[in-house]
Amino acid sequence: MEETKRTELSTLGEFGLINRIKGNFTLNNKESVKGIGDDTAVLEYSDSEYVLLSTDMLAESVHFDLSYVPLRHLGYKAVAVNVSDIAAMNGIPKQIVVSLALSNKFSVEALDELYLGIEAACKNYKIDLVGGDTTSSRSGLIINIAVTGTVKKEEITYRSTANVGDLICVTGDLGGAFTGLQILEREKQVYLTNPDMQPDLEGKDYIVQKQLRPEARMDIVHEFKELKLIPTSMIDVSDGLASELLHICKQSVKGAVIYDDKLPIDNLAYETATEFNLDPITCILNGGEDYELLFTIKQEDFEKIKNHADISVIGHIVDKAKGVNLMTKSGNAYPVTAQGWVHF
Amino acid sequence: MEETKRTELSTLGEFGLINRIKGNFTLNNKESVKGIGDDTAVLEYSDSEYVLLSTDMLAESVHFDLSYVPLRHLGYKAVAVNVSDIAAMNGIPKQIVVSLALSNKFSVEALDELYLGIEAACKNYKIDLVGGDTTSSRSGLIINIAVTGTVKKEEITYRSTANVGDLICVTGDLGGAFTGLQILEREKQVYLTNPDMQPDLEGKDYIVQKQLRPEARMDIVHEFKELKLIPTSMIDVSDGLASELLHICKQSVKGAVIYDDKLPIDNLAYETATEFNLDPITCILNGGEDYELLFTIKQEDFEKIKNHADISVIGHIVDKAKGVNLMTKSGNAYPVTAQGWVHF
Repeated sequence: MEETKRTELSTLGEFGLINRIKGNFTLNNKESVKGIGDDTAVLEYSDSEYVLLSTDMLAESVHFDLSYVPLRHLGYKAVAVNVSDIAAMNGIPKQIVVSLALSNKFSVEALDELYLGIEAACKNYKIDLVGGDTTSSRSGLIINIAVTGTVKKEEITYRSTANVGDLICVTGDLGGAFTGLQILEREKQVYLTNPDMQPDLEGKDYIVQKQLRPEARMDIVHEFKELKLIPTSMIDVSDGLASELLHICKQSVKGAVIYDDKLPIDNLAYETATEFNLDPITCILNGGEDYELLFTIKQEDFEKIKNHADISVIGHIVDKAKGVNLMTKSGNAYPVTAQGWVHF
Repeated sequence: MEETKRTELSTLGEFGLINRIKGNFTLNNKESVKGIGDDTAVLEYSDSEYVLLSTDMLAESVHFDLSYVPLRHLGYKAVAVNVSDIAAMNGIPKQIVVSLALSNKFSVEALDELYLGIEAACKNYKIDLVGGDTTSSRSGLIINIAVTGTVKKEEITYRSTANVGDLICVTGDLGGAFTGLQILEREKQVYLTNPDMQPDLEGKDYIVQKQLRPEARMDIVHEFKELKLIPTSMIDVSDGLASELLHICKQSVKGAVIYDDKLPIDNLAYETATEFNLDPITCILNGGEDYELLFTIKQEDFEKIKNHADISVIGHIVDKAKGVNLMTKSGNAYPVTAQGWVHF
C-alpha cells in the first residue's frame, strides 16, 4: 500500500460529513424531487401527492444505553424518531422497514420486547411494517429504520421556504428529553457505585418519558389539516432548538429573532436543569431529542393557533443580514449558535 | 427483575426469526400491497405502477472482512445487493438511502472510498442517493441501504406464482462468489502466517470479482421487457440456489425437479471447488452471494430465451406432492434442502 493521507472523521463534524457526501451526488431520475438536505427525501410517483422517504440509525452506546433503556421503549422510539421526520414534512407516515444488527447477548425474548415496542408505535402512528433485515453483529445493537409517508403536493413543508415576517412556532415544550437524560445518567452512576440502591426517578416521570419514549407530533400534523394551516417551513427538533432554527434560516436564506421568555419549558425540566446547575435556556437550545416541531407561519394565520395550548410563538423571521439572535428580557441580543450532536 | 426465560437467537434461524416477526404484523394501510415475504415490499401510490421498497444490512466480520475487501468494492456491493432485490421483482431501481455506523478507525479518506463505490453503483444502475444517516459505532462498520424501485403492475413478479409445467431458469453461473470467497480466505491465512507473501489471486479474477463486486442482473430485467417476457415467478440468488428454489416452491405451493447436468457453473469455479475438495454441485446449491436471478417461465415462452447465452433452463415445476428434487445424470433423485445463511 502506498502511504495515504489520513484525516480523522472528527474533523468534519456531522454537517461537514453530510455536505461532503451530498457534493458528489446529483439527482437524475425524474421521480427524485428532493434528495439530501431536508427531513426526508421527496419522491414523485403520482400526480397528486409526494412520497416521502427517510432513514435513521440508532447505535448502542451512542444513542442509547441499555442499562436504563427498556428494549420496548427503544423499539417505540426508533419508530417515533423516523415518524417525526415525516411529520416535519407535514406528511402522513405509511410504512417502515426495520434492519437490526445484534450480538448474541440478545435473546429471542429480548428481540420480542423490542418488536413489541415497534408494534405499539406502528399501531399508534398507523404504519405498516413491510420488511427488514436482521444480522448478527460483533458488539451491541444497531437499529436502522427507513420510513415512507405521503403528503399532498400543495401541503408539503420544506426547511427552505420561511419568509421575512413569518412567526416562528414550536410545539409542546423543550429541554425535557435532555434533562430526563441527566436524571437517567445520574441514577446509573449511583447504581454502579452501589448496586443495592434503587434508581430514584420519583416525580421525574414526564422528562424521563420524554427521553425514553418520545412521541412524534403527528397530532399536530393532523390538526394543521383541520385548521387548514400550512406552515411556511418546518423541521423537527431532534438536535436542539438552536441547530434546527439555524437549518431553517440557512436554507431559507433568512435571519430570525427568538425571545428567551417565550421559549416553552416544562416546570419539571426547568427545576431539573437548575438541580444540575444547567442553564434551562441552554437545555432548550442545545439539548436534543425533544422531537417537537419547529415551524413558521404567515402572520395572518396567527388567529388559527393563538389559543392552541400546545403551540408557542417564540419569535419571527427577519432579513438574513440581521442574523439569528436570541433576545433576552433585559433587551440583550445573543447570536444563536449550534453544532448539533457530534458523535465522532 | 423477575427471572425470565432466555432462548438463544441461534435456535430460531434466519427464517424462524422472519416468521416470528411477520406473525405479529398485519398490513392496514391501503397503500401496503405486500409486506414481509418477498424480495421487496410492494406499495401502491399510483394507478399504473407499484413502488418497491427493500432494505439490506451488511455488517463487518459477518458479511465482509476488510482485510481483503476494498472499501470501494464494498460500497458498490452494498448497492448491488439491494438493486438485486428490485430486479427480482422485475422492477427498475430508483432511489437509495444509506445509513452507516462506523468506528473512529475509519478516516475521511476511507469514507470517501466507500462512497466512490456507492456512487459508481448509482451511476451504473441509474439510481439517485437521496438521503441517509451516519453515526459512530463502538466497533467496525455497518452499512444499511434501503432502496426503492418501480414496476408496472402487470409486470411484477412474485415468488408465489409459479405453475406446474413452468420451466425453471437461472441467469449467468452459480458458485462463483462462494469459490471466490474460498480463495480470498485462503490468501488471508497465508498472509497472516507470513506477511511478506503477496496474495496469489492469479487467474482467479472472475470468481474473486463475483465475490467482491457482484452485479445485480438489471441487464436481464431490461431484456425481459424487450422480449415481452414476464416470468411467472422470480427471486434473486443471494443464499444459494437450493434455498431460493425452496422459497419459490413453498410460496407457490409447488414442487420442482432440477437436473445436475443443467446447473450452470463457470469452469474456474468448478476447478476451484475441486482444488478445495468441495463438491461443485454443493457450491451451486448452498454457496451464496451470486446475485443471479432464478425465475420460472411458461413453456410457450421457451422460444424467447432458448438461444440466450446467459440464461439456463435447469428444470421444471411439478406438483407439490412430488417434492423438490435434484436429478442426477445417473437417474437418482435427491431432495433439495437448504438453510440459507445462518448468522447466529
